[in-house]
Amino acid sequence: MVNKKKISIKQIAALSNVSVATVSRVINNNGRFSEETGKRVMDVIKENDYTVNMTAKSLRVNKSKTIGMIVPDISNEFFSTVVLEIEKFFFDRGYSVFICNASQNDLKEAEYFRSLDSKLVDGIICISGREDIPLDVMKRNIPIVCIDRKPKNDNNAIYVESDHYLGGFMATEELIQKGCKHILTLTKSNSLSVTNQRLEGYKDALRKYNYTINPHLIIKLSGNRPSFEEARDTVTYLIKKGIEFDGIFATNDWRAHGALVALQQNKIPVPEKVKIVGFDGISVSKYCNPPITTINQDKKTIALEAADLLYTLIIGEKISKPKHIIIPVSLIVRSTT
Amino acid sequence: MVNKKKISIKQIAALSNVSVATVSRVINNNGRFSEETGKRVMDVIKENDYTVNMTAKSLRVNKSKTIGMIVPDISNEFFSTVVLEIEKFFFDRGYSVFICNASQNDLKEAEYFRSLDSKLVDGIICISGREDIPLDVMKRNIPIVCIDRKPKNDNNAIYVESDHYLGGFMATEELIQKGCKHILTLTKSNSLSVTNQRLEGYKDALRKYNYTINPHLIIKLSGNRPSFEEARDTVTYLIKKGIEFDGIFATNDWRAHGALVALQQNKIPVPEKVKIVGFDGISVSKYCNPPITTINQDKKTIALEAADLLYTLIIGEKISKPKHIIIPVSLIVRSTT
Repeated sequence: MVNKKKISIKQIAALSNVSVATVSRVINNNGRFSEETGKRVMDVIKENDYTVNMTAKSLRVNKSKTIGMIVPDISNEFFSTVVLEIEKFFFDRGYSVFICNASQNDLKEAEYFRSLDSKLVDGIICISGREDIPLDVMKRNIPIVCIDRKPKNDNNAIYVESDHYLGGFMATEELIQKGCKHILTLTKSNSLSVTNQRLEGYKDALRKYNYTINPHLIIKLSGNRPSFEEARDTVTYLIKKGIEFDGIFATNDWRAHGALVALQQNKIPVPEKVKIVGFDGISVSKYCNPPITTINQDKKTIALEAADLLYTLIIGEKISKPKHIIIPVSLIVRSTT
Repeated sequence: MVNKKKISIKQIAALSNVSVATVSRVINNNGRFSEETGKRVMDVIKENDYTVNMTAKSLRVNKSKTIGMIVPDISNEFFSTVVLEIEKFFFDRGYSVFICNASQNDLKEAEYFRSLDSKLVDGIICISGREDIPLDVMKRNIPIVCIDRKPKNDNNAIYVESDHYLGGFMATEELIQKGCKHILTLTKSNSLSVTNQRLEGYKDALRKYNYTINPHLIIKLSGNRPSFEEARDTVTYLIKKGIEFDGIFATNDWRAHGALVALQQNKIPVPEKVKIVGFDGISVSKYCNPPITTINQDKKTIALEAADLLYTLIIGEKISKPKHIIIPVSLIVRSTT
């Protein structure tokens, strides 16, 4: 019986040559671990006559068993898909997840940080919107993981994002390789790094193929209206104005769809006369007619990496991975290129 | 100075001939009230030398200043639109809103009710998914307002819903009046009252115009796959099988869009050969090509009615409106009829 008290969860982890988080997953039979790892951990536990109750206690996983998520706009399918994956990850581990919609509004975001803090959540995942985290409103020092932004005011920030630069590059290269000579980009006029990285990728692809970067073909939309409508009306305007273009890189799928509809309404055949590549890989790109070639963000991997990082921090373990994780994007070729 | 303590918020409400909730709105200059009402209330307050701080205290609005929302699926645009309107309503009144995604799962829903209860939220709005409310898990008796469901286990339940029956009727009548003879409906095989009411509307419209109700034209989709894909593949199958139909009433807009794409892929002209009406009034119906005629749910009014009911209950006032509010729907005629 003495053994029961002598061995710690950390020692089990060390003896099994795995992390504390993995030991927790094995004990709770919850989450990802290989059969071999599971067997090794359970063997160590049995050999040392370690009881699960004591483990659960020493793990101190149970604080409030709730986490908060701050999202700029849940009606955006990219965000809602990521949010739902994270919710599932934590719910499966016994956590309730409170989702807060910050509407890309600084005051609102700060208020939700304050409120989640006062509700004693064990950690927060914050998805892009602004570039700062209102750390000053928090009374406790709890783990925070960001998606799609590196907070300017926190050098130790942990964040996960897609390879936006590569996405912009690949989208543009696809248009170049399919023969486009005058490639328009429909982007957004804000200074978020996500937006800038995609635009840099576009420019670098043009440079690689010795294309001129034509400022008149870089259209910065305001973002004040729905992406679809703004893109549709802008492309219609460019057509009427006689601006020459045969390729469009739209920095989200709704913009790509708006461009497609504008071309269809003006009887310009896609992809024969003009080719289109979108970004995100959400339903509209797949289900519109014809379906749109797009840069797919791996929403599930983004969600699981962020969730796993936060969970590791909540259970009090050090992170073995880099603090900045970049998730690859991929080109899905459909009917518009 | 004696007056300051003698008059209560209820007396101010009575003297101004408005509700306590309205007095609160006027004092906080927050929410909807007419200029005339504002003036009347402020006059009573001034006449009685009533101080705002005392009011705020006696209102006892400040409990935890948080509310919870339980939603079946935030990635569904109908739900996310309603949720965002409610969030805005409460945030403007100083409340934080925690959104919980219950994934149409009983256990999850119960867990979220328990967790919101333990976080001491002042009230809960619950959007359809299941027909019961897990009241047994709640330790406190806090106000709950439902959207799109009348809980079977709570006769005092307060709920807001669209006129689903009328929507089904109007959709079918539109197809009949545009000359359709064989009207298919793409519905869902569950027993939710929302689904049943729309189907009843369809049947009653057929009856009114002396059409035969043909069971082979009532297609109950499983809902196990995305609405778009299931509808597209089903309509493709019906076309190949040679089933005769010239009108489709799809019980949501994604199903309507799936049907449209199946017809386009099979070179069946819409609306010349087959006409389509969807339901909900979400982006896809407006932005697909051609845009789809649909039954619009007034998402903003649904949200504001539910929010106003919950707010009234939270500030401790009795509800003057009926406990079951039905919001009218409307037909938006576009290019598919």
